Amino acid sequence: MAVVLTFDDKRRKAPSIDALVALTAADLERVNAMIAARMSSPVSLIPKLADHLVSAGGKRLRPLLTIAAAQLCGYQGEHHVKLAACVEFIHSATLLHDDVVDGSDLRRGRPAANAIWGNKASVLVGDFLFTRAFELMVEVGSLEVLGILSNASSVIAEGEVLQLSTANNTTTSENTYLEVIKAKTAKLFSAAAEVSPVIAERPTAERAALASYGMNLGIAFQLVDDALDYGGTAAKLGKAVGDDFREGKITLPVILAFLRGDATERTFWTRVMEALEQNDADLPHAIELLQRHHALADTLERARHYGAMARDALGLFADGPVKRALLETVDFAIERTH
Amino acid sequence: MAVVLTFDDKRRKAPSIDALVALTAADLERVNAMIAARMSSPVSLIPKLADHLVSAGGKRLRPLLTIAAAQLCGYQGEHHVKLAACVEFIHSATLLHDDVVDGSDLRRGRPAANAIWGNKASVLVGDFLFTRAFELMVEVGSLEVLGILSNASSVIAEGEVLQLSTANNTTTSENTYLEVIKAKTAKLFSAAAEVSPVIAERPTAERAALASYGMNLGIAFQLVDDALDYGGTAAKLGKAVGDDFREGKITLPVILAFLRGDATERTFWTRVMEALEQNDADLPHAIELLQRHHALADTLERARHYGAMARDALGLFADGPVKRALLETVDFAIERTH
Repeated sequence: MAVVLTFDDKRRKAPSIDALVALTAADLERVNAMIAARMSSPVSLIPKLADHLVSAGGKRLRPLLTIAAAQLCGYQGEHHVKLAACVEFIHSATLLHDDVVDGSDLRRGRPAANAIWGNKASVLVGDFLFTRAFELMVEVGSLEVLGILSNASSVIAEGEVLQLSTANNTTTSENTYLEVIKAKTAKLFSAAAEVSPVIAERPTAERAALASYGMNLGIAFQLVDDALDYGGTAAKLGKAVGDDFREGKITLPVILAFLRGDATERTFWTRVMEALEQNDADLPHAIELLQRHHALADTLERARHYGAMARDALGLFADGPVKRALLETVDFAIERTH
Repeated sequence: MAVVLTFDDKRRKAPSIDALVALTAADLERVNAMIAARMSSPVSLIPKLADHLVSAGGKRLRPLLTIAAAQLCGYQGEHHVKLAACVEFIHSATLLHDDVVDGSDLRRGRPAANAIWGNKASVLVGDFLFTRAFELMVEVGSLEVLGILSNASSVIAEGEVLQLSTANNTTTSENTYLEVIKAKTAKLFSAAAEVSPVIAERPTAERAALASYGMNLGIAFQLVDDALDYGGTAAKLGKAVGDDFREGKITLPVILAFLRGDATERTFWTRVMEALEQNDADLPHAIELLQRHHALADTLERARHYGAMARDALGLFADGPVKRALLETVDFAIERTH
């Protein structure tokens, strides 16, 4: 089954974040320098471990949002550099703790920090990065920004605990799943975009618009991520497929397939996701069930819904290259294949 | 060998924190209410786990410092209640992560949170408490206070990582040990006392004085703690004795005994603290070595040095019941037997 494209011209170039990256390149270089400077510590394990994670690549999507939103708001100052670094630090701290909690050995195809330096170091360096994030935002000196980012951090932490209670629970509701991904992923996207109109002293409406853009983009992004973990609607068994399945992580595709499945299928899901009793035939069978019940296609359909809200949120900004790049980022989030 | 008392009258009443507790009782009740309110969450695991730790008793020494310092500065507002709760949250978050890192099963004689709910929950609820601490301080709305507490948090986290590198390392220097306890314990005592003159808008000298009082009190407090873990100079083998020994935690008594010991003794320390090969005769033998080299008495002597600095730091405040209670707290920190 093919993805239902929302555009008429199916031959057009696939959407990408190339424009976003190009427009923000100069600022991002300064953000990277700030990140490197603030990871430093006389305690040598800290920069070593932090650098392993932070330099591992990744799209730097959250800092890009902060920079692009600052440009969209015509911001002329310097604070967005610190705030973009701060947002990346919060994200990195979360990843370190996530990998400990999930017992992950790999992160972006490389050994995870906890697999090299152990769980203790990952917990404590995660704490360190988080406190450095707070120092950065305090330096910016805006109580409004501090309110946004401290609240976002608190929501993220609450979401992590909530996710713990959904782990290996096939009867998790779509609503609880949504709460988790809003808290764990979308809230930081939202905060990353929302701080920029605040430092640019733009009207409340622009702040609300960018917060909404980030929130809905983040939800769409995570939904697609969760579909891609089963190969997306193409359901190709690539090397990145099946991580969530092996961990028994309950995501929307599984929730939908479970709800739409019969008793035999539910027994299957309970065995593989709750008891984690899995054999080689189980992942292909799981994907077959996801396909049979349109669970992957509908997960992407849900993502399109949030993507549409993200795009509309930018309606009050005038057209221009940055706005177009942010709109294309929504398309990229939804149509990407990896 | 008896403790060398720094006071002439050996029959005087043992110093206590009773006066401090009595003077701060009304405010502490409001702090406890604030703590209870801010631990709440619709994610039920959060208040359950947090309450287990936060309600476990403990002396609430850090919030008491914030309250007493506010009284000493004649502060009339309400911010000290939030800041005292904030300081206790930072402390609690640290304890949760500490117990995970140390693999501790007990905390204040009760099962540690990680022993009941697992390490994952303790890591994540620790993160949550930490973010709640930041929300509280942001609400207070003072960038100076935010600077003090975000910096303290960062120093604490850095100290935790530094301690990781000293674990089971008998050649840890006294200086590195001091750096660790300054960062892990004393910095938060210092910040707890320093925020109050800031919200009371007192002169810089009072802020520096209270920061120094807290820092030196904290160092003395931890030194005595580390001596008491081997029974203090009384060297009574109570039930709380030997925890550090069993974990191979390198504290000043061991550092001094190792430095002062001969080759046979160093082989002993290496076996029990680094290789963690311990039998029933080892703890009594360790205590015998600590006594032989005056390691416990000298650890307490070092504590008296910092205690003297803490007392002198309060010199510029006029005499009164709160000042007297803070001075007695220093004596208590040093002369306590538990």
